[in-house]
Amino acid sequence: MAEKEDSQDKKFMARAIALAQIGVNANAGGPFGAVIVKNGVVIAEAHNEVLQTNDPTAHAEVTAIRRACQTLKSFQLDDCILYTSCEPCPMCLGAIYWARPKKVFFACSKKDAAAVGFDDDFIYQELDLETADRSIPMVHIHDEDAMKPFKLWDEKEDKKVY
Amino acid sequence: MAEKEDSQDKKFMARAIALAQIGVNANAGGPFGAVIVKNGVVIAEAHNEVLQTNDPTAHAEVTAIRRACQTLKSFQLDDCILYTSCEPCPMCLGAIYWARPKKVFFACSKKDAAAVGFDDDFIYQELDLETADRSIPMVHIHDEDAMKPFKLWDEKEDKKVY
Repeated sequence: MAEKEDSQDKKFMARAIALAQIGVNANAGGPFGAVIVKNGVVIAEAHNEVLQTNDPTAHAEVTAIRRACQTLKSFQLDDCILYTSCEPCPMCLGAIYWARPKKVFFACSKKDAAAVGFDDDFIYQELDLETADRSIPMVHIHDEDAMKPFKLWDEKEDKKVY
Repeated sequence: MAEKEDSQDKKFMARAIALAQIGVNANAGGPFGAVIVKNGVVIAEAHNEVLQTNDPTAHAEVTAIRRACQTLKSFQLDDCILYTSCEPCPMCLGAIYWARPKKVFFACSKKDAAAVGFDDDFIYQELDLETADRSIPMVHIHDEDAMKPFKLWDEKEDKKVY
């Protein structure tokens, strides 16, 4: 499945890297950029905007996914390719699985990111811990109504499954 | 660290569960709700809005985090507690680590969510695979300029580290 890139892929990746530089120069956020392409056409671009927008979820990939979905008027990135200047963090990787593009290209690695202070590896490690053992404590509350929304969803006849 | 909940916590969780039901009834998205509290006061509420907004990242937790950060004018949820009607998916868990609330309470489990068709477990498994082995292929492109944005960031004197 993991075929090599071609010259088109390299061109789109160069744009993702350029966006990362634009973002740093604009004080928008960290040094990350992303481009989403469908049928050879760019449908969304983004750089990290965490600082500019006070939004910790405004990573380049999440922002590009949101924009591409607005362009397509769909919550799924069917047949799309995501180019990101750096290997996605767990949040962005999760977003990628929910959006379901067909392929992802990345340039820098998680280790490269950690070297300039973006320690995604820490989050990857936390994900593998039991909830109560994580550095942010995560506590289960028993509530007898907790399953009611799930039952409502399960029995809903006009729901759009995603 | 994982102390038990008190009556206040139960009240906020009941609201998160109520939001989940409101969201299903409004056809906004899946059966999930979240509340963020600071110093005993609700500063943000959300239910899942994936379908309503065509945004695959608009899970209850991500949406509540974004709103709370707008309220606080900060990309960090210092001293905040997040109440979510269901154990967070990898995307939301990543968002939680970037936003850094002090604690998270959840009601339903990942298994409960999987039983009604929201298979976060699949994503958790994919995260542990090597990039090339994932169901969405993730391919490394070597680009000689890839490290330039990181260098720019690293050498930037007026940067705000986050």
